[in-house]
Amino acid sequence: MQATPAYDALTHTYNRLHRLSHLQSLAGWDQAAKMPPKGNAARAAALGEMAALMHRMRTDPALADTIARAEQEALSEMQRANLREIRRDWLRANALPESLVHRRQLAGTRCEHAWRKQRPANDWQGFLGNFREVLALAREEARLLSERSGLSRYDALLDRYEPGMSSATLDRVFGELRRWLPGLIAQVRERQARETVLAPVGPFPVEAQRRLCERVIHLLGFDFEAGRLDVSTHPFCGGVPEDVRLTTRFDEHDFLGSLLGTVHETGHGRYEQNLPRDWLGQPLAEARSMAVHESQSLSFEMQLGRHRGFVALLAPMVAEAFGAQPAFAPDNLHRLMTRVEPGLIRVDADEVTYPAHVILRYEIERPLIEGEIEAKDIPALWDAKMMELLGLDTRGDYRNGPLQDVHWTDGGFGYFPCYSLGAMYAAQWFAAMRRDLPDLDARIAAGELTPVFDWLRTRIWSQASRWTTDELALRASGETLNPSHFKAHLEARYLG
Amino acid sequence: MQATPAYDALTHTYNRLHRLSHLQSLAGWDQAAKMPPKGNAARAAALGEMAALMHRMRTDPALADTIARAEQEALSEMQRANLREIRRDWLRANALPESLVHRRQLAGTRCEHAWRKQRPANDWQGFLGNFREVLALAREEARLLSERSGLSRYDALLDRYEPGMSSATLDRVFGELRRWLPGLIAQVRERQARETVLAPVGPFPVEAQRRLCERVIHLLGFDFEAGRLDVSTHPFCGGVPEDVRLTTRFDEHDFLGSLLGTVHETGHGRYEQNLPRDWLGQPLAEARSMAVHESQSLSFEMQLGRHRGFVALLAPMVAEAFGAQPAFAPDNLHRLMTRVEPGLIRVDADEVTYPAHVILRYEIERPLIEGEIEAKDIPALWDAKMMELLGLDTRGDYRNGPLQDVHWTDGGFGYFPCYSLGAMYAAQWFAAMRRDLPDLDARIAAGELTPVFDWLRTRIWSQASRWTTDELALRASGETLNPSHFKAHLEARYLG
Repeated sequence: MQATPAYDALTHTYNRLHRLSHLQSLAGWDQAAKMPPKGNAARAAALGEMAALMHRMRTDPALADTIARAEQEALSEMQRANLREIRRDWLRANALPESLVHRRQLAGTRCEHAWRKQRPANDWQGFLGNFREVLALAREEARLLSERSGLSRYDALLDRYEPGMSSATLDRVFGELRRWLPGLIAQVRERQARETVLAPVGPFPVEAQRRLCERVIHLLGFDFEAGRLDVSTHPFCGGVPEDVRLTTRFDEHDFLGSLLGTVHETGHGRYEQNLPRDWLGQPLAEARSMAVHESQSLSFEMQLGRHRGFVALLAPMVAEAFGAQPAFAPDNLHRLMTRVEPGLIRVDADEVTYPAHVILRYEIERPLIEGEIEAKDIPALWDAKMMELLGLDTRGDYRNGPLQDVHWTDGGFGYFPCYSLGAMYAAQWFAAMRRDLPDLDARIAAGELTPVFDWLRTRIWSQASRWTTDELALRASGETLNPSHFKAHLEARYLG
Repeated sequence: MQATPAYDALTHTYNRLHRLSHLQSLAGWDQAAKMPPKGNAARAAALGEMAALMHRMRTDPALADTIARAEQEALSEMQRANLREIRRDWLRANALPESLVHRRQLAGTRCEHAWRKQRPANDWQGFLGNFREVLALAREEARLLSERSGLSRYDALLDRYEPGMSSATLDRVFGELRRWLPGLIAQVRERQARETVLAPVGPFPVEAQRRLCERVIHLLGFDFEAGRLDVSTHPFCGGVPEDVRLTTRFDEHDFLGSLLGTVHETGHGRYEQNLPRDWLGQPLAEARSMAVHESQSLSFEMQLGRHRGFVALLAPMVAEAFGAQPAFAPDNLHRLMTRVEPGLIRVDADEVTYPAHVILRYEIERPLIEGEIEAKDIPALWDAKMMELLGLDTRGDYRNGPLQDVHWTDGGFGYFPCYSLGAMYAAQWFAAMRRDLPDLDARIAAGELTPVFDWLRTRIWSQASRWTTDELALRASGETLNPSHFKAHLEARYLG
């Protein structure tokens, strides 16, 4: 083997960054799940110091030359893929002047902090004051990233979360979805109006819910020797691949929200736990993208979690946790878990109406970043699109309208599409899985979940960032993103 | 005010170190209290990376010159005290070549790791193999530190934990203690042989124990908005001053161990929570020393926690937690909490026999570091001293003899004396408190604990590292270390 000194130097730097980011991730998890309130200022200072330190490592002027030299070295295919991801990370870190990064962070923190009170107060005008600054800085960021990458401004932001994805593709995919979705929702609702659904009778003690969640997480193959389940206000999957921290929240009057939320986070968690061990520490070993990550959580929550066969496995566990009751019959439980109802809040949406929330946000944030509309135009567009897509009147209700999400408050434009791309990829993985394993549904119903996990491990988890998303999808499922699988999935489940 | 650019640059560096050490402390807490087993390798790598990074900051060659320049600047008294502590930190970090630090860490990890199995196997010979290497490196460290500081070799190690303390003082103090302690133990035991003590009847459910501990921690003034209580195998007080993490362990058959252990950690915790806010981030704001820290935990656990008046406050809380029973009568509870019985294990020892364990270790580790004895000589010395001090035969029982503690396995020589120095200082603080507040005991019995906390806050907690330990003791209690208070305390409590 030839010597690869420049490449080796890069892997050394990225190993160091990986080790330091371990402490960042842990502190982030603790902040959300364990930290008492007065610890916040010191924690923020500690995390800020660490972020600055890691930024300095990533923007060391010597790195550019090292990357250039590494590209001339004799690298294996895996090493070359790793170098591609290193270059991507380097470009992102070096594209923006430090003053912009700093101003953006300040504006985002200010806007997000004020938003916490503006949202309950329905104070759109107050929000606009801070948000205009956030938007101006995001546009400046988009302009600089666009100049570097040759991508359009919005695409340059999108690329931070979903490399390789473009608004051209989103326009096509979401445009198509938009045409059939309102009709499908109407059909499903008409059909469900004739169903009888029994509501479970609570309360559901938190300890029993916790034990049920842990049992289900275990059933889903999560390794509790390399991870935990805790409680936080906003559930998430954090930690590091070697020690994955899932969180949930419990509501004594509703066990399904926590249970299905936990199934969702377990999907993220198994992806992380099964990233390639030999490469951990290198960018190659990181999850491919936000959409692919979401395709794992939704493979668990939607494809598997609401699968009729899987619900039949859950039913006796639920009855054991809370005592038997008629609502826990498998059929009724399945109906409860597949109710479709247009609502104002994205995070509460079912899998059928969810894409409407994402399309709406995409159709607003793209022209916002491109400078085609202004912040003040958001409410009117929101109202029109909510009426068009879900038939809901949102006029004057900013709290449950454009103020509902945290994403825009700190400039996270380009993230929303990943949610629905994830749902589409999840449907695509399961369609491919059924082609590869014709008896898949019967095996799930028989409690055999290993084929699902093996398929995902081989084709997605273990591949990490070895390929671009398009290549990954092609190798896993024989085609790049194909949203027709999502349509077929919804039709089969909700109209079949 | 005159410009102090060099001093300012130092405070900037130490603020950065403080912020990074926040993430270290948190990760250490998590490792002991939350981390699943498979997270260990990645955590160790992350902590190792951080330690190396902080070591590089502390050994930056420019620092020596900055410190020298700062010493020429016009500093306030507080700034000068801070600079004294900065210089101390700098000396410690720069005294040892990095290769020695590295070899010492490797040898310590190896010895400690093997010890975990060698201890239960009573394998002294196996332990000796690794321990000789640890000892050789500790001697080398002591030699280098001794050359730098002009202290004797053992004193140079002691100074890491207890700056200003010397073996001359320890010889005098422990030498005196040694003369009266065996006689006192005999007297107390004779007296207690005539007492009747009822044993509490368990089991004591863990949840009830946790609630009781939290109630007592609250009574002791700990701020739960700036701290937590969790469970770990070895109880400790961790986290950061702004967010103090106490831990305990529960045993269904014994609630007193956990309760008093928690009171102990709360003493450490209140010290940390009340370090001077305005100076946090600077060495001046750190706890003075290990003995002073221990004097706070023992002020809580021994002076206050076993105070007859305080036990009378505890008794109804215990009865409420577990249901009333005769053993929970205040007098009986007090007897339970003040039983004296020579035993083999230091951490299980009562406050009367505890110093014997420390003296024994000091009398072995000092000549060991000075090269007057060798590792192989330890068991015979141990046996002789245990017989002399506590009348116990330990021959052949290495597991409950020199293998019982973790301290020596990774070279922590010089730490043991701090435990008993802490007990002496605690007695000294309470003696001074009684002089300042003649009705102290009546007020404690009436449930008024604020005078105790106010005294400790004003004289110890808020003073942090502003003074040397001798100055701190003098200002707080009118005299430097005076072990006669400890003797008087034991006589009053156990023979009074």
